[in-house]
Amino acid sequence: MKASSNTELQYDRIRAVEWDDGRVRLIDQRVLPARLEYLYLGTLDHCTQAIRDMAVRGAPAIGITAAYGAVLAARDRYTENPSGWIQAIEADLEHLALARPTAVNLRWAVERMRALVRAGIPGDPVPRLLAEARAVHAQDIAANRLMGDLGAALIASGSGVLTHCNTGSLATGGFGTALGVVRAGYAQQRIARVFADETRPWLQGSRLTAWELVQDGIPATLVADSAAAWLMKQNQVQWVIVGADRIAANGDTANKIGTYMTALAARHHRAKFMVVAPTSTVDMETPDGEAIPIEARAEREVLEFGGTRVAPEGARAWNPAFDVTPADLIDAIVTEKGVVEHPTRAKMIALMGSSS
Amino acid sequence: MKASSNTELQYDRIRAVEWDDGRVRLIDQRVLPARLEYLYLGTLDHCTQAIRDMAVRGAPAIGITAAYGAVLAARDRYTENPSGWIQAIEADLEHLALARPTAVNLRWAVERMRALVRAGIPGDPVPRLLAEARAVHAQDIAANRLMGDLGAALIASGSGVLTHCNTGSLATGGFGTALGVVRAGYAQQRIARVFADETRPWLQGSRLTAWELVQDGIPATLVADSAAAWLMKQNQVQWVIVGADRIAANGDTANKIGTYMTALAARHHRAKFMVVAPTSTVDMETPDGEAIPIEARAEREVLEFGGTRVAPEGARAWNPAFDVTPADLIDAIVTEKGVVEHPTRAKMIALMGSSS
Repeated sequence: MKASSNTELQYDRIRAVEWDDGRVRLIDQRVLPARLEYLYLGTLDHCTQAIRDMAVRGAPAIGITAAYGAVLAARDRYTENPSGWIQAIEADLEHLALARPTAVNLRWAVERMRALVRAGIPGDPVPRLLAEARAVHAQDIAANRLMGDLGAALIASGSGVLTHCNTGSLATGGFGTALGVVRAGYAQQRIARVFADETRPWLQGSRLTAWELVQDGIPATLVADSAAAWLMKQNQVQWVIVGADRIAANGDTANKIGTYMTALAARHHRAKFMVVAPTSTVDMETPDGEAIPIEARAEREVLEFGGTRVAPEGARAWNPAFDVTPADLIDAIVTEKGVVEHPTRAKMIALMGSSS
Repeated sequence: MKASSNTELQYDRIRAVEWDDGRVRLIDQRVLPARLEYLYLGTLDHCTQAIRDMAVRGAPAIGITAAYGAVLAARDRYTENPSGWIQAIEADLEHLALARPTAVNLRWAVERMRALVRAGIPGDPVPRLLAEARAVHAQDIAANRLMGDLGAALIASGSGVLTHCNTGSLATGGFGTALGVVRAGYAQQRIARVFADETRPWLQGSRLTAWELVQDGIPATLVADSAAAWLMKQNQVQWVIVGADRIAANGDTANKIGTYMTALAARHHRAKFMVVAPTSTVDMETPDGEAIPIEARAEREVLEFGGTRVAPEGARAWNPAFDVTPADLIDAIVTEKGVVEHPTRAKMIALMGSSS
């Protein structure tokens, strides 16, 4: 716990999502690191749009935004019709849950808020729902702190680590999942070298992860995604550490496109592969990776950069936002309820059945 | 030969390098596909600079540029000192050969021109050297045509192929190595689907390969480099087809960064892996991949995207331009002297010893 308190002070200054005086305040992640700009969202529709457009991204941060968005919806629906708001909000919440298909935290957060709505709230529902959304947020940060220590404990002193995409404060309530482990492992002097994939097409690694690490004073080296295997060949990487958008009941893990290729390279080079995610990312209703819906995003994310066309007119692209890493390529899944090594269905059932 | 004649007509309109009335004319590959601009180079120094700055790139195209550059050097040195030009040109050629370290075609072309210089040319050396440079160029195109057919013959009808970097007319004398096989295989209706890695950091796939294929009317789909394994998982790729910057005596192959990672993914998914390169790319003096020097290029190629900074100030990057794919991940090396399946040192010796 000492290390955690330490890293808490050092490495927890960024908040992707905040409740700010009746509005949801987001860091606009589309314009980082060139500009640090905030969006202030006053309606559920604005939240849904921000999730779809990736102003906010990262499975846990999406879930938290959705929880606060449900508060905005309840406020508007209750104002419109204090006796009929519960019926009206059902469609709102369903629309919100469909904003992005792969990350299960979105659905998880919506269901958590909906359960409370359905249970019945007498009078103005806003205070009760806001307390719940704040709890979702606070629990996520607490889970990240815990996972940071659990994950770091797996890493031998002097290790090099590689991470993919952004899984830090920007992707979560705060501190981060995989990047939380990097923060904790660096603070504990277990991690000697940090590498980050730039993470095409959206460049979460270059734009967001590097930005967080520069702010924290943690030295890190960016690599083109396709250089990861060659980096491992130089014996620079002992652990690959990634987050997750959905973990199926057998441990198969959907995460940012490129995670699967990196996992294959890690296995070939005997680097270990760690998935770090709160149990809100685990979906026991999804039996395996085959059943995870993979979001197809716009071709222009590959064909353009920053609004400038890179490929010639007439070129096409295939742009799946995620891929699935099978459980047998994963050495450890780190959750706030504990670590599952070499995940199997039985081990995942044991994890999810246990109380934290 | 019928298919070859056919593809010759259809798919051979682009020339990266040309001798143009006493100058070397290059397509400036740094500004494609936004603009098709030509550079006209009148001195060896300009050629060396164009190679170093990647106005021209691709191992065979670099070799051809160097051969023409040697003509420019001979013209200038002979004009300066008709009796002492041979001594003066030695340092010029050595400087040229060092412009980029990994692609062996550069050294190969310089040595070919140097051998002629040393053999002694009476009077003005320009006509004889220009004829030699033109022969280097013409032989490269002829080799590409032949390799196109040899490589295509390995591909079963209805196959999907994935290529990395650019290995087309822009990377060679004309037609292309790996992309020559794609052209021939498509013309012969063996190839049903063409995928191209965008190839960070320099985006040769998005900018150059897609540009060539759009011009040829060959439908192709770009993918982020890290999506290649997930694409293979969908059973879309039967062959990965790449070029080479240097092939060692045991078949280990240096090629654009990311080739190695793609080869690992191909092996895992039982997709086959083909290297296509003229024998000028084979260096029997380099025993294996360990001995191939890998060029480290500027960090900003990774930290920027199309000249615009993407990573925050303070971020660092590791940017090897190439990696090495070990021979045991290669199913076939296609050269103009024939195809080597499952390359070994003995097979490479047999290939290089044989006359074409």
